[in-house]
Amino acid sequence: MKKIQMIWAHPRMESLTGRVVASLREEVLKEGGTISELDLYRSNFDPLLQQSDEPDWNNPDKKYSKDVMKLAGELRTQDALIVVFPVWWYSIPAILKGYIERVWNYGIFYGKGRTLPFKTIRWIALTGEPESSFTKRGADKILQSQLNTGISAFCGANDSQVTFLYNTLGEGIDDIPGHHADLTEQARQVVRELVRKSAE
Amino acid sequence: MKKIQMIWAHPRMESLTGRVVASLREEVLKEGGTISELDLYRSNFDPLLQQSDEPDWNNPDKKYSKDVMKLAGELRTQDALIVVFPVWWYSIPAILKGYIERVWNYGIFYGKGRTLPFKTIRWIALTGEPESSFTKRGADKILQSQLNTGISAFCGANDSQVTFLYNTLGEGIDDIPGHHADLTEQARQVVRELVRKSAE
Repeated sequence: MKKIQMIWAHPRMESLTGRVVASLREEVLKEGGTISELDLYRSNFDPLLQQSDEPDWNNPDKKYSKDVMKLAGELRTQDALIVVFPVWWYSIPAILKGYIERVWNYGIFYGKGRTLPFKTIRWIALTGEPESSFTKRGADKILQSQLNTGISAFCGANDSQVTFLYNTLGEGIDDIPGHHADLTEQARQVVRELVRKSAE
Repeated sequence: MKKIQMIWAHPRMESLTGRVVASLREEVLKEGGTISELDLYRSNFDPLLQQSDEPDWNNPDKKYSKDVMKLAGELRTQDALIVVFPVWWYSIPAILKGYIERVWNYGIFYGKGRTLPFKTIRWIALTGEPESSFTKRGADKILQSQLNTGISAFCGANDSQVTFLYNTLGEGIDDIPGHHADLTEQARQVVRELVRKSAE
């Protein structure tokens, strides 16, 4: 899998999310892949679904807004997708939700036999809380179900996995830079395996 | 419970969501309540959390953006909240997610003992799919957990319920107006009970 699209969401470029993205970009290139990046915040993506992008259930060939057709087109040549985001309120940030709502639309990537042009998605979820408190209430299972079943598989991408980078706030940890380096390495490992994977 | 805030999200005023909202407004007034309405789309609410509204985990008294402080203030005098929205991708629309992310912020409605100023929230979820296919995969349980536990109770509102208005697309139904009238009546019933309820 050499041609990778990376989509990410964080208001600050220099956030841990932004730094993980920079490492993953480096990792893809090191493994001989190419990367096409959609930085939702810096590309001024508008997450508001308006009437022009509402699905028409009687017309899977509806022409959505120009932005949507363009962003959907960018996915068509890819082998796989990586999505990097902070977990806010146990889910994806609004800007990323709006991207799915607008771009992965009826007749584009689902409905009437239409699917995403690839089967493989890796969701990298930066989670402020430690693993123990996050998983205690089943928040990991819920988010996995939302993303793997409710979004990826809904659009035909059955090879979908969520990797949680836990405790980004570093509760109970003295060496925060070392901890963040460990988290980044976990994400690099996911991407390394992804790029080395044979296309199905 | 007489003072009700109603928050809602749909790009079209004349959508079924918009019509349910109009009926609920009427119902609250009929029961002798007052209503304060936040129509997220028409009020040009910006759902993008920017740096100015990122939580500062070391400062629960952070002054967030003017919009956020104003919208948070509007909740302070209410007895209860009704939220009306279409279910998109098994969850809430991006604009509503962005409202929670920005306005229900750290130090405002959670953290350091801070909570919402009321205990009672009613989520009215308009669901395109019929009940049988939606619940088969547990999507109802997942959304209930997200909203009741992950959002309401997280902010101290322990009396939180999700009401699903199923099959808004009317699959297998001949009399669509009659079906939509039934769904609207279900929502009215929720609000009637809410306004008649004694404050705890």
